[in-house]
Amino acid sequence: MTQLLNNIHAIILAGGSGTRFWPLSRETCPKQMLHIVGEDTLLRQTIKRVNGFILPENIWIVTTEDKAQDLKFHIDSLGPLAKKIQFIKEPLGRNTAPAIGLAALYLNRLSTDSIMIVMPSDHAIPDTEKFLSGLNLAIKGADKNHLVTFGIKPSRPETGYGYIKTGNKSINNLNGLVKVERFVEKPDLQTAMSYLSNDNYFWNSGIFVWKTSKILSEIQTHLPSLYHTLKEIESLLFDSGKLNRLEKPNKPDKLNKPNKLNEPNKPGTRSALCAMRYASLESISIDYGIMERSSDVLMVPATFQWSDLGSWTALDEVIEKNDSGNILKGNTIDIGSQNSIVFSGERLVATIGLKDMVVVDTPDATLITPKEKVQEVRKIVEILKQNGREEHLIHRTVERPWGSYTVLEKGQGYKIKRVSLNPGAKLSLQLHRKRSEHWVVVSGTARVMKENDTYLVHTNESTYIPVNIKHRLENPGEVLLQIIEVQNGEYLEEDDIERFSDDYGRT
Amino acid sequence: MTQLLNNIHAIILAGGSGTRFWPLSRETCPKQMLHIVGEDTLLRQTIKRVNGFILPENIWIVTTEDKAQDLKFHIDSLGPLAKKIQFIKEPLGRNTAPAIGLAALYLNRLSTDSIMIVMPSDHAIPDTEKFLSGLNLAIKGADKNHLVTFGIKPSRPETGYGYIKTGNKSINNLNGLVKVERFVEKPDLQTAMSYLSNDNYFWNSGIFVWKTSKILSEIQTHLPSLYHTLKEIESLLFDSGKLNRLEKPNKPDKLNKPNKLNEPNKPGTRSALCAMRYASLESISIDYGIMERSSDVLMVPATFQWSDLGSWTALDEVIEKNDSGNILKGNTIDIGSQNSIVFSGERLVATIGLKDMVVVDTPDATLITPKEKVQEVRKIVEILKQNGREEHLIHRTVERPWGSYTVLEKGQGYKIKRVSLNPGAKLSLQLHRKRSEHWVVVSGTARVMKENDTYLVHTNESTYIPVNIKHRLENPGEVLLQIIEVQNGEYLEEDDIERFSDDYGRT
Repeated sequence: MTQLLNNIHAIILAGGSGTRFWPLSRETCPKQMLHIVGEDTLLRQTIKRVNGFILPENIWIVTTEDKAQDLKFHIDSLGPLAKKIQFIKEPLGRNTAPAIGLAALYLNRLSTDSIMIVMPSDHAIPDTEKFLSGLNLAIKGADKNHLVTFGIKPSRPETGYGYIKTGNKSINNLNGLVKVERFVEKPDLQTAMSYLSNDNYFWNSGIFVWKTSKILSEIQTHLPSLYHTLKEIESLLFDSGKLNRLEKPNKPDKLNKPNKLNEPNKPGTRSALCAMRYASLESISIDYGIMERSSDVLMVPATFQWSDLGSWTALDEVIEKNDSGNILKGNTIDIGSQNSIVFSGERLVATIGLKDMVVVDTPDATLITPKEKVQEVRKIVEILKQNGREEHLIHRTVERPWGSYTVLEKGQGYKIKRVSLNPGAKLSLQLHRKRSEHWVVVSGTARVMKENDTYLVHTNESTYIPVNIKHRLENPGEVLLQIIEVQNGEYLEEDDIERFSDDYGRT
Repeated sequence: MTQLLNNIHAIILAGGSGTRFWPLSRETCPKQMLHIVGEDTLLRQTIKRVNGFILPENIWIVTTEDKAQDLKFHIDSLGPLAKKIQFIKEPLGRNTAPAIGLAALYLNRLSTDSIMIVMPSDHAIPDTEKFLSGLNLAIKGADKNHLVTFGIKPSRPETGYGYIKTGNKSINNLNGLVKVERFVEKPDLQTAMSYLSNDNYFWNSGIFVWKTSKILSEIQTHLPSLYHTLKEIESLLFDSGKLNRLEKPNKPDKLNKPNKLNEPNKPGTRSALCAMRYASLESISIDYGIMERSSDVLMVPATFQWSDLGSWTALDEVIEKNDSGNILKGNTIDIGSQNSIVFSGERLVATIGLKDMVVVDTPDATLITPKEKVQEVRKIVEILKQNGREEHLIHRTVERPWGSYTVLEKGQGYKIKRVSLNPGAKLSLQLHRKRSEHWVVVSGTARVMKENDTYLVHTNESTYIPVNIKHRLENPGEVLLQIIEVQNGEYLEEDDIERFSDDYGRT
């Protein structure tokens, strides 16, 4: 069993941008980083769900290069566990088939017997025990060299999902698993109604379990072009010999590391070639590319509650409603609304007599739509992109491993931030070429390094950091440090920062 | 005609709180101070409408004591005109009959031949020329000692208004004026439909013209108790002899001023007695108390467009809609909404497929309601009051005669404001007992007086004002001065201010 345990890996797909949860989701804060249901964010819940069942060093997050650092910071609050979790970075998103193929390359180098559990990072599965019990079953099927998927018993005639059609009986030597007859395209309403009353139709959950050798072989059969490119990438990545990671499971740092997949600024390097090859791949889902074509798929009928949180209205499935069918969160006052979702933060949202509406409020943007139009929120995000705006990119408040900052106001020639530093935390040693900064401490005590000086700034004291001066802000105390930072300058973007030393690897 | 002109006064009723336009209206920023339609705020438009027709020193604003200073600051932008406008302050609101009675007392002291034009301060009348032409007609009727009202030809079967039923023909010697047969209570829909197709029914506009002696005599007849109390108040107010204001029309400062009506902190004084007597009055409208009971009312059939802006949906009457019937103002993105009103400021409001909805966004509160429920916004304000909240009291940005300030954030032990000072403006010489202030100049140059020092603080410089230190902020330059003020202290309310000298009479 130890050998088996060492060979089981969780591949968490976290490349999605989740525009459908705008304005709460942003490019720098996609759906998997949102805390919309359950006790934590969706990504951290996904990790916690398999932690203990899977060795921490066998948990992999697959995401795109541009999201990786934010996700690393995001999981940092998981403590020592977070340090063991590994990242596989795609140069850019190419849908699930290439992402899973890339992960399979990595795992297959460790052992051809590796079993990979592929999980989206942004689904809601409240009952971990039932999930793990299903997972045990799925692993047995994968160990016998089958592709295994999880099917969800439909609770409504959903026309937005693909379905799985199963045979009637369990597999002989794999009690509880059933044979998949075929994958079915999204049905019309009438067909969906008939599926709902037929025991052999299930929703396709997007959770898969298989051996890496098996999925690579299926890719070779059904997506030969992807397979070919993956092989090219493999030879570029792993040119210095075979990884043998399982011999040193607790020292991931000392592994024989592959070359970096993405170094876009160095054309002609192996990394740049890999990135180019990856970018050339067809964007295709694993469902369409493999699952619908393979003849060797088994299914675990899920006994757990599940939602893919495909849109704001999916909250109706996973959050308890009040007597009027409403979900009201945050600073809200409502008079007589019905079956509506009102998601607010600190600002007041007052609603009167809404019916089947969704209202989502954030510090810089508010969405108001009937439930039936909720899919069109993507179009809003598209308009924001086209108009070169910012409300789809970043939130006013940005979480960092050292705490957070909130942009309180931007004006001509100035920007005001509240910066919150956790006890013991330290920003990077840095300087700005184009802005000066006034800091006023409003709670806690700051230790400030400025050129060769180091001094304390207490609550109700201030200090000034001129342009081009190296400086560092630290919270040496045991309570939260909060400073109000008033930046002055003609250019006030985040990228005017030169880092010389950083506790979080950002130099 | 000069004698007549000297005798004509405009009484602008500006005591309303306008909860129906929440969240844009607040207790400290009632509907009359809103810029929702036309080229200026409703109150300033009302003043401009009669300015030139009425002598500036004959324009009076009747409001409650607690609103008077904000209204004075509010009209300050009208320049020299504003300085001539006089205020009549009620100790508290008692509806229109007492307010008009009180104004009549003041004017009747000036001349018993005074004609008063009574106008609400928060109505929309886009066509000034037609309005003044109607006013000329009304004044002729008032001069002949009639009560004159303005009737509006109904454009829809409105059930929310009272109606005026007129006779068929013009008065013999007052061509254009018609005799009012009676005032009619708010009708049901069927009755309203029949009024719509009957030439003799008009909406009651709330605009009245009469001699002060005439209205006082009508009050004596129909509201004897009000008359009695007004007489008591008159003898308390004007104990030092008859006002003879018309002899010195350009020097209102040197008038033989009446005692103050309201000095609540000095019980036993004449002012306190006045306030007590006024507070004891029955709250009653002029329509119900006088107009419905008098037999001597003429009506000017208004030829101008008019709206009382009774609720957010009234905007549909006075603001041009787009092709989909929407009114979209401010930072909005809409996909496919119909017949909806979206009022936003700087924050983004994104709407999809709304139908007959009202959305109003402000920096600290957002309202969302179907048009048919828009009257219930009062209930929201009631809930805010009951819960001791602030979103109905004051806006984040407060206009002052010297500029404005915006509260950017309040936190435990600190508050952050952006303070904008107009060129040449100067705050009061002041000190704070419970807070210190850090000022960072982000545009312009400040002159700071601190104890016995006076010094300049330029853009990107800062200064510190400790607790209990007299200080003064001034903009000596020719461009806007903007400072970011970070207040520190356990108590951070506006009332922690001792003023020693002030350009705006607030010491």
